[in-house]
Amino acid sequence: MITSPAPGRAFASDNAAGVHPNVMAALQEANTGHALAYGDDPWTRSTESRMRDLFGPTAETFLVWNGTGANVVALATLLGPAQAVICTNWAHINVDETGAPERILGAKLIDLECPDGKLVPAQIEDQAHTLGDMHHAQPGVVSLTQSTEVGTAYSADEIASLCEAAHRFGMTVHLDGARLANAVAAHGASLSTLRSMTVDAGVDVLSFGATKNGMMYGEAVVCLNERAARVAPYVRKQVTQLPSKMRYVAAQINALLEDDLWLTLAGHSNEMAKRLYAATRDISGVVFAGPPVVNSVFPTLPPSTIAALQEWCFFWDWDASVHQVRWMTAWDTSAADVDAFATGVREILGVRHIA
Amino acid sequence: MITSPAPGRAFASDNAAGVHPNVMAALQEANTGHALAYGDDPWTRSTESRMRDLFGPTAETFLVWNGTGANVVALATLLGPAQAVICTNWAHINVDETGAPERILGAKLIDLECPDGKLVPAQIEDQAHTLGDMHHAQPGVVSLTQSTEVGTAYSADEIASLCEAAHRFGMTVHLDGARLANAVAAHGASLSTLRSMTVDAGVDVLSFGATKNGMMYGEAVVCLNERAARVAPYVRKQVTQLPSKMRYVAAQINALLEDDLWLTLAGHSNEMAKRLYAATRDISGVVFAGPPVVNSVFPTLPPSTIAALQEWCFFWDWDASVHQVRWMTAWDTSAADVDAFATGVREILGVRHIA
Amino acid sequence: MITSPAPGRAFASDNAAGVHPNVMAALQEANTGHALAYGDDPWTRSTESRMRDLFGPTAETFLVWNGTGANVVALATLLGPAQAVICTNWAHINVDETGAPERILGAKLIDLECPDGKLVPAQIEDQAHTLGDMHHAQPGVVSLTQSTEVGTAYSADEIASLCEAAHRFGMTVHLDGARLANAVAAHGASLSTLRSMTVDAGVDVLSFGATKNGMMYGEAVVCLNERAARVAPYVRKQVTQLPSKMRYVAAQINALLEDDLWLTLAGHSNEMAKRLYAATRDISGVVFAGPPVVNSVFPTLPPSTIAALQEWCFFWDWDASVHQVRWMTAWDTSAADVDAFATGVREILGVRHIA
Amino acid sequence: MITSPAPGRAFASDNAAGVHPNVMAALQEANTGHALAYGDDPWTRSTESRMRDLFGPTAETFLVWNGTGANVVALATLLGPAQAVICTNWAHINVDETGAPERILGAKLIDLECPDGKLVPAQIEDQAHTLGDMHHAQPGVVSLTQSTEVGTAYSADEIASLCEAAHRFGMTVHLDGARLANAVAAHGASLSTLRSMTVDAGVDVLSFGATKNGMMYGEAVVCLNERAARVAPYVRKQVTQLPSKMRYVAAQINALLEDDLWLTLAGHSNEMAKRLYAATRDISGVVFAGPPVVNSVFPTLPPSTIAALQEWCFFWDWDASVHQVRWMTAWDTSAADVDAFATGVREILGVRHIA
Repeated sequence: MITSPAPGRAFASDNAAGVHPNVMAALQEANTGHALAYGDDPWTRSTESRMRDLFGPTAETFLVWNGTGANVVALATLLGPAQAVICTNWAHINVDETGAPERILGAKLIDLECPDGKLVPAQIEDQAHTLGDMHHAQPGVVSLTQSTEVGTAYSADEIASLCEAAHRFGMTVHLDGARLANAVAAHGASLSTLRSMTVDAGVDVLSFGATKNGMMYGEAVVCLNERAARVAPYVRKQVTQLPSKMRYVAAQINALLEDDLWLTLAGHSNEMAKRLYAATRDISGVVFAGPPVVNSVFPTLPPSTIAALQEWCFFWDWDASVHQVRWMTAWDTSAADVDAFATGVREILGVRHIA
Repeated sequence: MITSPAPGRAFASDNAAGVHPNVMAALQEANTGHALAYGDDPWTRSTESRMRDLFGPTAETFLVWNGTGANVVALATLLGPAQAVICTNWAHINVDETGAPERILGAKLIDLECPDGKLVPAQIEDQAHTLGDMHHAQPGVVSLTQSTEVGTAYSADEIASLCEAAHRFGMTVHLDGARLANAVAAHGASLSTLRSMTVDAGVDVLSFGATKNGMMYGEAVVCLNERAARVAPYVRKQVTQLPSKMRYVAAQINALLEDDLWLTLAGHSNEMAKRLYAATRDISGVVFAGPPVVNSVFPTLPPSTIAALQEWCFFWDWDASVHQVRWMTAWDTSAADVDAFATGVREILGVRHIA
Repeated sequence: MITSPAPGRAFASDNAAGVHPNVMAALQEANTGHALAYGDDPWTRSTESRMRDLFGPTAETFLVWNGTGANVVALATLLGPAQAVICTNWAHINVDETGAPERILGAKLIDLECPDGKLVPAQIEDQAHTLGDMHHAQPGVVSLTQSTEVGTAYSADEIASLCEAAHRFGMTVHLDGARLANAVAAHGASLSTLRSMTVDAGVDVLSFGATKNGMMYGEAVVCLNERAARVAPYVRKQVTQLPSKMRYVAAQINALLEDDLWLTLAGHSNEMAKRLYAATRDISGVVFAGPPVVNSVFPTLPPSTIAALQEWCFFWDWDASVHQVRWMTAWDTSAADVDAFATGVREILGVRHIA
Repeated sequence: MITSPAPGRAFASDNAAGVHPNVMAALQEANTGHALAYGDDPWTRSTESRMRDLFGPTAETFLVWNGTGANVVALATLLGPAQAVICTNWAHINVDETGAPERILGAKLIDLECPDGKLVPAQIEDQAHTLGDMHHAQPGVVSLTQSTEVGTAYSADEIASLCEAAHRFGMTVHLDGARLANAVAAHGASLSTLRSMTVDAGVDVLSFGATKNGMMYGEAVVCLNERAARVAPYVRKQVTQLPSKMRYVAAQINALLEDDLWLTLAGHSNEMAKRLYAATRDISGVVFAGPPVVNSVFPTLPPSTIAALQEWCFFWDWDASVHQVRWMTAWDTSAADVDAFATGVREILGVRHIA
């Protein structure tokens, strides 16, 4: 049992966090009179313009409801007949979307073993051997996640190399950027960092995450590929991802993009993970593979301590077979939350040692 | 040209309306600390409980993003292999969802001519003739819309008769209730009215509309059929309709259900349509088929007046070939909006007569 | 009761007919030693070459199992994201394929009322109004049937006009030629007739029927559109339509194409329908809308006679509500079959009159 | 270069083999007069009856075109909403069907590493951990292949254990029996062997292979699960797998089942693989993992010899990275074929040694 007070916010997930005050204020401001539905409103036009500021003048933005939806819309704009999607075994589209891609896209996911959550060009080249063989689904899209599901991040060069390999074989590239902000923040938090990882690297379509980074709901699909952009409006509606009162999604994103709030929040979240790592790494029994890159750490803990710690302040198991857990920070995690949590960890592990 | 001032709110659609103050307040209140995602939170549990108060103790509620999503989830819980959906030619699922049902469900829609937007049991009986014939998609689900896409509403007895016919042939019944509130308000605005049109009539699964009735986003799929309820959680996620920060959807619905606000708003919207009808029906050149049942009217207008009127205060064409338009009221339409609009109609039609 | 002897072959369908002796002989001849599967054999190469003789040097042929499969493969090579298929209400893909297109293509069929089974360009133009509106599945492919499901046939000019209209709006054209041979035979039975109705008219992909015309099994998808041809091999396998021991499909088609046997057989079948019409049109109680164009007639009969006639020599009801039936001839229907049948019709109708 | 004469039949695949004379004769016999299409004929009724003799009185048989089709039909009869299919990484449905299952079923395949091509119950138990978690496609069907794609075979007890595990978790079992005959022949070639591996083991639906075993085309889906049987007729047509002139499929299977010809042919094929193994295992440079179980061997060869050997008498690479190839025998492989092939192997390897 832990007697010290639990943190105000737990370390379960960034999707357990609340909504940033600026976003709430933007929702209030947008709530004035009537506005035509489905994006024919000034808030949405402003979002589209802001996204072109980020990704260049040809970027076309399509607001959607959620991350799974963004991924499905993005892939649907890219896939041709009988094509398959190459991804990692950890990919959210492969593991955490209840088979949405297979159902809605009718496409095979070719999931490749990637212990660190990152594909390498040789894997694309290897899969390319099935091109032209009618007995195999044809690899058509490479889907990367930045930052990855296992807390790592690609460098801009790595993404560029993967895009080069994909394009060499006529494939296109989707980037699942549910936590793109965290990767950008971790690599410099600048516009050029963002561009180097996306449009300059050759990404065709990206899912631009926002909900986990301080919004209430809503993500964006950003098409950098003109052909994808042409079909996106129809595909978005067809896969149930067209918000009717779209001004409220747009207003939130506009608030997030204002003065780089999105990078500030992601950067803060990353910092809190570093603080958590620093505050617990020397506790006997807590074992890390290394320092966090973005906003999550994956320690192993003594098996007997996990349940008590979770009951006190919830977090998720990651790999129960090796007693590995995930502690995730969010835009609203405070230094006090981290310190209180570290105190609890210290306490439970100390208690355990004494007992 | 119209010189009188345009109304503050136009008559384009109830999805152009804003968010009710109580709903905004509920969003603010829900924005406190962390809450686990995907519905494991007290707001969602409250919604589930409130829905059981409305639909009975076996009702299982699944919050989703939007109306198309609600319909797709609902149908996916009901459809078996090789089954088809019977609906009207006007059905939203048939006309206004960009083929989402066909793509996501892989199912044929059998759309039947229904000039008033309402199916009759004989149509179900007629389609039942293909049951057992392997060359035809098997009618498995009957999808009704209440109130309908053309501004009519079924009586509770009519729905009960349709459910009886469907069940007699082993089919199930989906009710698209994107504007169910308006139908309930039009028929007495009581809990017993609601029940008579849904659970007591034999409906299996319904889409419970909320966005058009004062919310920012979010609808509910209510399963009254136990088998549908069992698969609904997986299907909802699989078709991209699982909100992550679900507390914010639940909080809105809770505000809407508090003190029957949902019926008050829908009733007001209906009243405004009646007022609009009364204020314009005697204007020469404006022709109605009859008084409104819910919150829309579909007048025909002299062709030369439509564009000018739309430019002054926007509304949508309905059937351009016969110069029929749609004027739709919303929860926030005011009597002053209606009166100002009627003045403009009178003005443009008067001008026309003089010219 | 009919006392005269029933015909050796009934008038149920051309798919009830047997296999032509030349086709059987070709199967025997092909059954020698090993041949690589999936089309890498000399028989298939010969088919591909013969088809280029028919449809021009750019025609690419893909052998498949059956008519539904041919249609699904053909449409799958043409459809883009969120696109729909325009067809008639009578279309085999709409009525008789158990929703295969919706399931496998995930695409909406827009079925238009065409009492004579034939689309007209104005219907395409009308549907084109939804192009660019994201709330509607985008008409992308026009599917025609030649000869039609109701026994009519397009002229070459009619098909050319439909192709022109479709292409004008960026749509492509599929021709379901399950009974294309009958239409060609009815319009001159020449190579130039065939070309005028297909490649010269602008058809993009066609289903080339063969099973109903004397084969045991097998049809061909012929791509005249290069982009469709590129994806066809993968799509064919993916929709389960790639025959493994393909030499046996190819050998059959080669036999059918040798010395224009396919046109001879279809022409004979058409002639038998004309003979049947001539032999029964003056029988009191048998009412025809007109003479047959291809190999079927659709008389109405006195209701009391239908069951007895079917029991004596089977045929299918067509529209039971008006006592209309279908009599269909086949490549192997003999003049004696027709005459025997006409005798029976005469007998049953005479009996009825006396009673 | 090899100077000895090449065998009359190569070792590429059993689908390169011809058609057995009895099957050809049966096709000739069936080619008499008209027969109603789609299975309403005496040949098909005989097949259904013969299959009940094999699999018990509740077995329902559905004839289809090919193996991929059989698998898709079988799985479609079993899968519920949001369910996934568990299979091996080697499974034909996973590797060799161009994503047909994903496209037509909309279902995820969970492919598990099985070096010997055989699942074990612990793998099912492990996957069952995701049952009830809405974020993961729900394992609903376990698909086994007997004999496997890598030349192994399950014992009856192994299949029974897998079925028990699957059923314990509410899953059903599909058996891909494209080469079931070879497994039955390898384990005793008796009716009780067949039953022990299928109906007695608890298999729900099986694909019964026939084309590779001496037929021209056609396979059977056998439903031992009543619920699957009820939907099978509609599903079969919907996935394009309903043969129109079905008598010709049925007649072939009837010939194959007559006097256990199917087991005689498969047994012969197995014997030829054993002979090939015995004739080449002692050749220096040819390395086998072990003797064949059914009708294929997978030797590794000196890299420099493979191309020359393939040019002389074709076979397929299996794993080029380790110079492993596949030699497959067929129902019509003769002892002389095997001996001639062994002579060539000996020659090329001897040449290599001298050089």
